[in-house]
Amino acid sequence: MWCKKSFIYKFKNFFNLTIQKKYSVIASVLENANIGENAEGWVKNLRVQKELIFADVNDGSCAQKLQIIIPKELKTDALTYGSSVHIRGKLSKSPRGQLELVAENVKVLGPCVVLDGYPFNPRTTHPPEYIRQYIHLRSRTNFLSSILRVRSSVTKHIHDFYSSKKYLNVHTPILTSNDCEGAGEVFKVQPDCEDTIKAMMQDGKDKDTVYFGSKTYLTVSGQLHLEAICRGMGNVYTLGPTFRAENARSRLHLSEFYMLEAELAFCYSLEQLQNHIEELLKYIFIETRHTNEADLSLIDKENSKPPAWLQKKFATLTYDEAQDILKKKKVVNTENGLNKEQELALVDYCNGAPVFIVRWPKDLKSFYMKECQDDNTKVEALDLLAPITGEIVGGSLREDDYDRLKSKLPSDKLNWYLELRKFGNIPTGGYGLGLERLLQTMCGITNIKDTLPFPRWPHNCSM
Amino acid sequence: MWCKKSFIYKFKNFFNLTIQKKYSVIASVLENANIGENAEGWVKNLRVQKELIFADVNDGSCAQKLQIIIPKELKTDALTYGSSVHIRGKLSKSPRGQLELVAENVKVLGPCVVLDGYPFNPRTTHPPEYIRQYIHLRSRTNFLSSILRVRSSVTKHIHDFYSSKKYLNVHTPILTSNDCEGAGEVFKVQPDCEDTIKAMMQDGKDKDTVYFGSKTYLTVSGQLHLEAICRGMGNVYTLGPTFRAENARSRLHLSEFYMLEAELAFCYSLEQLQNHIEELLKYIFIETRHTNEADLSLIDKENSKPPAWLQKKFATLTYDEAQDILKKKKVVNTENGLNKEQELALVDYCNGAPVFIVRWPKDLKSFYMKECQDDNTKVEALDLLAPITGEIVGGSLREDDYDRLKSKLPSDKLNWYLELRKFGNIPTGGYGLGLERLLQTMCGITNIKDTLPFPRWPHNCSM
Repeated sequence: MWCKKSFIYKFKNFFNLTIQKKYSVIASVLENANIGENAEGWVKNLRVQKELIFADVNDGSCAQKLQIIIPKELKTDALTYGSSVHIRGKLSKSPRGQLELVAENVKVLGPCVVLDGYPFNPRTTHPPEYIRQYIHLRSRTNFLSSILRVRSSVTKHIHDFYSSKKYLNVHTPILTSNDCEGAGEVFKVQPDCEDTIKAMMQDGKDKDTVYFGSKTYLTVSGQLHLEAICRGMGNVYTLGPTFRAENARSRLHLSEFYMLEAELAFCYSLEQLQNHIEELLKYIFIETRHTNEADLSLIDKENSKPPAWLQKKFATLTYDEAQDILKKKKVVNTENGLNKEQELALVDYCNGAPVFIVRWPKDLKSFYMKECQDDNTKVEALDLLAPITGEIVGGSLREDDYDRLKSKLPSDKLNWYLELRKFGNIPTGGYGLGLERLLQTMCGITNIKDTLPFPRWPHNCSM
Repeated sequence: MWCKKSFIYKFKNFFNLTIQKKYSVIASVLENANIGENAEGWVKNLRVQKELIFADVNDGSCAQKLQIIIPKELKTDALTYGSSVHIRGKLSKSPRGQLELVAENVKVLGPCVVLDGYPFNPRTTHPPEYIRQYIHLRSRTNFLSSILRVRSSVTKHIHDFYSSKKYLNVHTPILTSNDCEGAGEVFKVQPDCEDTIKAMMQDGKDKDTVYFGSKTYLTVSGQLHLEAICRGMGNVYTLGPTFRAENARSRLHLSEFYMLEAELAFCYSLEQLQNHIEELLKYIFIETRHTNEADLSLIDKENSKPPAWLQKKFATLTYDEAQDILKKKKVVNTENGLNKEQELALVDYCNGAPVFIVRWPKDLKSFYMKECQDDNTKVEALDLLAPITGEIVGGSLREDDYDRLKSKLPSDKLNWYLELRKFGNIPTGGYGLGLERLLQTMCGITNIKDTLPFPRWPHNCSM
């Protein structure tokens, strides 16, 4: 018999020791001053005084910088703003109680000659549009590195939220033969190599179908796949990239973006879904305020206090109620549905708090949404509108009646989706949340291109 | 001032209450018998006795089933194997101490008529090749649902491992203008819609370049992008889909698969990288044995005890030593490098334990790998070989000398990658680990198509 517990204990103990020696990133040093005598990172600021030099060093592990005190005789020409350094020394507390490292040895690992084309300058707040021109270097700025830390934390909190509820993390596919009901905003995928295509070519196949045997697209949503797993394993979620081949440039659109999608098993009402979404959002906001307070303030001073709506219940309006409000406010729209201006007007109407819009006209929504029992012109759908971005979540109960779904199925290719209802079917509901828009709302980032490390949009796929 | 701690406390308290009421999945009920009086799930087995019916119900939250005791008068015709049910009743302990639910009300949510085309039968172990034909339904089998739970847990342990070390989770892009040095095994991406293409067409552009302004591919690795973030923010990792347009069908290859990649900042030696990889692998294996013991045993009885190598240090062989061993064993190869047979022979030589192969001939490896200081025909690269799959990890120290890298750069398109070395450069090393191969090794799954929910391979992209 293998004694699991004692082994795991021994194992963890062994590795904790080694971790303490090797991984003294600045975030860990600031949490526990006993674990490091070295510092590695980039010089963010340098103040030269008579006998001493004060260098603020950051290694990306947190927003905070570690102050290094360097005796003047250890200064070399290469020790400049932007250079990377390895410092050996002694940690101590400054008269003000701040942790600092008194250097005994300073090694410049990589110099940084600003005049040689480095685009950033010390003590300068470069505007986001300027920083965006230097995609490969922009993680070296305080602004973007704070955003990327927030993004990483939000991702962690999302996984923790679902894990605590025992949701299954499902890796839904990127490649799919589902063309999204012919909506026309998809990317298609082919092998690039002509030799591969030639070798695989058979009668009746063309370049579009030769590799997979069917035309293949980049996913626009993992929902249908999630529903398949949900109908065998219960509550599921997925967090990953999705794609839109729109020819639209805006501060809210990307060609590649992350979507969080979840499907709730045994979901009997839209209210059940709404409560879950509200809990999720509040959890992410509160946890991130806890883990990344300094980053949030650095991104936007407005973030220094949490939004008031975190302590209140989200409002709910029916689609018809929302239209009445917009008419009274004279924010009208010649097209169907809600446009961005109207969405933000509704958020404004709710004092800047997120608001659910429910019970949508059937013809504005997708085939898989469940009809309202008391009104078959409406579906059990919801949009959640939020400040800055408008729509941030879209969801619905799913049509669970086999015959009704069959009559609405847009393509034979989706027979597999229909068949999910044939055997041991369950009522489910689900939603999709745009990660980048969530970050915009949370951090007050006006341009979506600043919410992720490598944005892709029409005419731009650099790197 | 906002009183954060007390607010978070109140918030968590509030939600814990609601969680207890709503989320009584079977995994939670088995952990804490106080939290549920209802059960929802699928009937996995049904035994009819004189007065009582015993139904084993599973909801996908764990491998275990909850036994439901149903008085005969509550039985309906629809209550069969494969049907989904909602049970209200009272939890109690059986004479053997096992938790069971005595039903007071039984509702069949979705019937399952096996004769109407349901491919699975009760008390039958269907072979994986059979199950694979029913991709949309296969999460309803014990075999695949156990694998998907292990996959979800492994994913969680990976995130926890890096989070504990304060690594940044970076979402590297799927779309890239980097063609992977013209290796020819990439997929290219275009908008599917002819109208979009027409509207965006400009002089000198073709269909391949019109949307993004440059030819665009699906990523084969996030490494180069990770290196860009690593050189501003330190330790980073990414876990996500990668793609190969190979015309190869094997039990080890997929067209879309998940890769875990990490880049270690301030990485001075291959040994530092090896220790980190060994720690990662052992952590994942041990944690998963802890969280998914029942699933592992269900997938393969051989998994009932952990592999002996978990308690030993991984062996290391140089590439030259490995070749000598293979010559003595007469496992030879006319091509360069190691083939699968040789990889497995080396694992066998190490008593079935993972083994690092280091110091590879330069011409077998990529341009970005650092030359060995004492032998410029070799690079500081490693492969980790493991049972069942052979190569499971590939990694290296990265060339950090600007001029040497410049001389080896395969394309001007990678000038951004070169420029990372120009300003505040640091020594780094990194690796990629195939998630599906890890699952094969961990669980003893011979065909890689059974390690993920929706496998894609040449001639197959169903759903």
